[in-house]
Amino acid sequence: MSHEDRIRLPALRSRITTAEAAAEWIRDGMVVGMSGFTRAGDAKAVPLALAARARREPMKITLMTGASLGGDVDRQLTEAGAISRRMPFQVDTVLRQAINRGEVMFIDHHLSETVEMLRTRQIPPIDIAIIEAVAITETGALVPTTSIGNSASFAILADKVIVEINTSQSPALEGLHDIFIPKHRPQREPMPLVAPHDRIGTSAIEIPPEKILGIVITDKADSTSTVLPADAETAAIAAHLVAFFEREVAQGRLTERLLPLQAGIGTVANAVMSGLGAGPFEHLTMYSEVLQDSTFDLFDAGKLDFASGSSITLSPAKARQVFGDLDRYKDRLVLRPQEVSNHPEIIRRLGIIALNTALEADIYGNVNSTHVLGTHMMNGIGGSGDFARNAYLSIFATKSVAKQGAVSSIAPMVSHVDHAPQDVDILVTEVGLADLRGLAPRERAAAIIANCAAEPYRGMLQDYHARAVATCGGHTPHRLEEAFSWHVRYRDTGTMRPD
Amino acid sequence: MSHEDRIRLPALRSRITTAEAAAEWIRDGMVVGMSGFTRAGDAKAVPLALAARARREPMKITLMTGASLGGDVDRQLTEAGAISRRMPFQVDTVLRQAINRGEVMFIDHHLSETVEMLRTRQIPPIDIAIIEAVAITETGALVPTTSIGNSASFAILADKVIVEINTSQSPALEGLHDIFIPKHRPQREPMPLVAPHDRIGTSAIEIPPEKILGIVITDKADSTSTVLPADAETAAIAAHLVAFFEREVAQGRLTERLLPLQAGIGTVANAVMSGLGAGPFEHLTMYSEVLQDSTFDLFDAGKLDFASGSSITLSPAKARQVFGDLDRYKDRLVLRPQEVSNHPEIIRRLGIIALNTALEADIYGNVNSTHVLGTHMMNGIGGSGDFARNAYLSIFATKSVAKQGAVSSIAPMVSHVDHAPQDVDILVTEVGLADLRGLAPRERAAAIIANCAAEPYRGMLQDYHARAVATCGGHTPHRLEEAFSWHVRYRDTGTMRPD
Repeated sequence: MSHEDRIRLPALRSRITTAEAAAEWIRDGMVVGMSGFTRAGDAKAVPLALAARARREPMKITLMTGASLGGDVDRQLTEAGAISRRMPFQVDTVLRQAINRGEVMFIDHHLSETVEMLRTRQIPPIDIAIIEAVAITETGALVPTTSIGNSASFAILADKVIVEINTSQSPALEGLHDIFIPKHRPQREPMPLVAPHDRIGTSAIEIPPEKILGIVITDKADSTSTVLPADAETAAIAAHLVAFFEREVAQGRLTERLLPLQAGIGTVANAVMSGLGAGPFEHLTMYSEVLQDSTFDLFDAGKLDFASGSSITLSPAKARQVFGDLDRYKDRLVLRPQEVSNHPEIIRRLGIIALNTALEADIYGNVNSTHVLGTHMMNGIGGSGDFARNAYLSIFATKSVAKQGAVSSIAPMVSHVDHAPQDVDILVTEVGLADLRGLAPRERAAAIIANCAAEPYRGMLQDYHARAVATCGGHTPHRLEEAFSWHVRYRDTGTMRPD
Repeated sequence: MSHEDRIRLPALRSRITTAEAAAEWIRDGMVVGMSGFTRAGDAKAVPLALAARARREPMKITLMTGASLGGDVDRQLTEAGAISRRMPFQVDTVLRQAINRGEVMFIDHHLSETVEMLRTRQIPPIDIAIIEAVAITETGALVPTTSIGNSASFAILADKVIVEINTSQSPALEGLHDIFIPKHRPQREPMPLVAPHDRIGTSAIEIPPEKILGIVITDKADSTSTVLPADAETAAIAAHLVAFFEREVAQGRLTERLLPLQAGIGTVANAVMSGLGAGPFEHLTMYSEVLQDSTFDLFDAGKLDFASGSSITLSPAKARQVFGDLDRYKDRLVLRPQEVSNHPEIIRRLGIIALNTALEADIYGNVNSTHVLGTHMMNGIGGSGDFARNAYLSIFATKSVAKQGAVSSIAPMVSHVDHAPQDVDILVTEVGLADLRGLAPRERAAAIIANCAAEPYRGMLQDYHARAVATCGGHTPHRLEEAFSWHVRYRDTGTMRPD
């Protein structure tokens, strides 16, 4: 495929430039919006050229993306000291350290909300957007690649747009996208999406072509998924959830189609989704953010009818299979802006079954998704808050212990709360599953300790809870002087075990 | 008005019975759904007859309502030992004590979610509904009184319904209600409500008349509001918010109409809403849960065009004025099921400005709305979570201190988290207002401590935060061993002051 096929509006072909030249358009203090969601469809060339420039010439930007970037972009920009502010999500080790040193101000949004705040000018506007595209259409519209994320609104709201045409991205991606942008209030109307497969928008990002400052041609592949294969614990978690769904079907609360599934990114959620393929479920659908290997495993197993997401992030082998033969899946897939994939209106209407991963949970079912020891940011809340609050059923999964057993993922009290008990219906570990629907806090504690915690922590939690009930009482008994003692012990001794 | 006018389906008139006889239909172990939301429109006769019966004849029920009840219902049922489980909200002192002793299992729902969980049978079904009505129509439909709350879905989902026709409630209430019930999934469609004044449902609760077991005639008035008049602190909070909204208008982010307003129940929110009448705002609208005195103050001041709620709860004087001349307001008012008033879809679409009250907040903007000292339930989360998560702008207000200064409402770390920082855009006390939009945690801490805390706590918070940054660091610096030391000191010494 030639550049002519990728840039179908001839007037734009003269705007092809180098990454280095494009990086010069970015000035110190700018707010830059880049494509990229869960390492997919991120701008790859201009950001690295910008990092190279920032190493020579000190400058700082506010960097907004859809979610996490792949490659080395966050690392190189951080090492160059080029990021002053970052939102709404990240997963990079070097950037994370800078955030936790207080050098980069990180704003951890619900993923559906960033463009709402931009559109209403509640956060500073984007000066320049850098968007990866498969192609530019005859009218100058941008065809995204393997993610949409916030790209559409970034391109629409920015004064200037740099496009990276990535020739390694399959032209077959064109037609996969469904770009819907809500109107400004008070003109906003209902979103006419009533099933995961509904298409309500356009297949490309429509912007005035004159906003396109320059076009950079790249051929760097998306970073691949870092998801680990299923292990004994993730298989056990999946088995508990399959058994749970079977009971829900038997009791008539769900059909064998279940309801549209959302799965957070990562090893646990991916393993659980794959595990659903072993259950007696048929004609499943997904309405999720990121489509991982498990989505295509379920397609191949004939279990999944349709999947809606905001990005596709795959392992190397699965990427070769899927993108090498995308037409095989294309009529069962759609990618949407993350504002739509994560929209409260749609999540509530469709009745999503939301599956997200907890860093830790506590005996009452509060969930910490983000902060190690209550202080250090891991990645960000991502879309978990959009889904957990508004879902039909909100499931959180975690292994019962971490760090070779030195850390209990079930704590007396979580050191940071991302999800309140109202938003945690089911908590599951490899030990078992606690169904918390309709339970009061003292009942939730009994269910979580008995079903989700591993020894010796289970006994320690029973002891903590009994003493909290006896000495402090209340609706949600706690001993505040002791609630974080496990975390402090781990911090000071390297283990939550008492000795 | 005669009973014939109140019971317009003649076949039902023979079902008139006494409260005592109706109470006999309720059996030990039943799940009972009662009308009532913020003390308005609650069933008043049968519940008290049930309490009298339970004092003679031990029995326990699960009691569901819309939100809080008035009169003595929760107290008398609790004193009779008749409540085993209670959801989704309450405000009664005696019931609260029983909850905090662990004698009553209280399930603290987001108010939009209770009927979703009932409809999908994720919590045990309602055996019998007791619904206060102004009238029963020619077709046997129930015309609610001063609240809808969960009444419509309770009546639709229950096998059997007891109706309390309350002759003290104005017949002019008929026509005020708009009852919309979402379809079961996957047939659910967009809710066609695009402005606070839109009517999308029916004016009465349509149920098969044969479900009506009995009709009890009462004339007990609604309990009146316990909201206190504005004081110096609430007036200062209102002034800070008026100034904030003026700046938003000046900067072009809002117009002088603002966006539809939601205000939580209580003295602070009521005072702030009244205070808006002093600002340069025009053609305001409300899309809220409870309509308090301030709603009618704003109508009378010519500032408010329309108000949508789920209940009307007024002071005695205001109740006489409003219900004595309801036709004056009727075309500017609508009451909806709490599932609709609090629906994520509508909240996000309309772009609600949500104003709720915090029990305490912390330096990072986490908010505790429910738990005293992290353990003892006050009332419940109510609708604050429905609104704060999905609103255009989420504001939390509190006085900076409580208990004559012995308690700082701004703590190093809240002892219970109902609202994560992502859901707290503005924090305001009488000291000042912190605009937290687009800020990272360390910046939020600086803004909250400087603008919202009162001395000596402000200096103590600065000291805590500086030491947390220096010794622990992280994205959200905390000293876990010290985070609750203020709460423990208050519990043990009666004050958070150090000596």
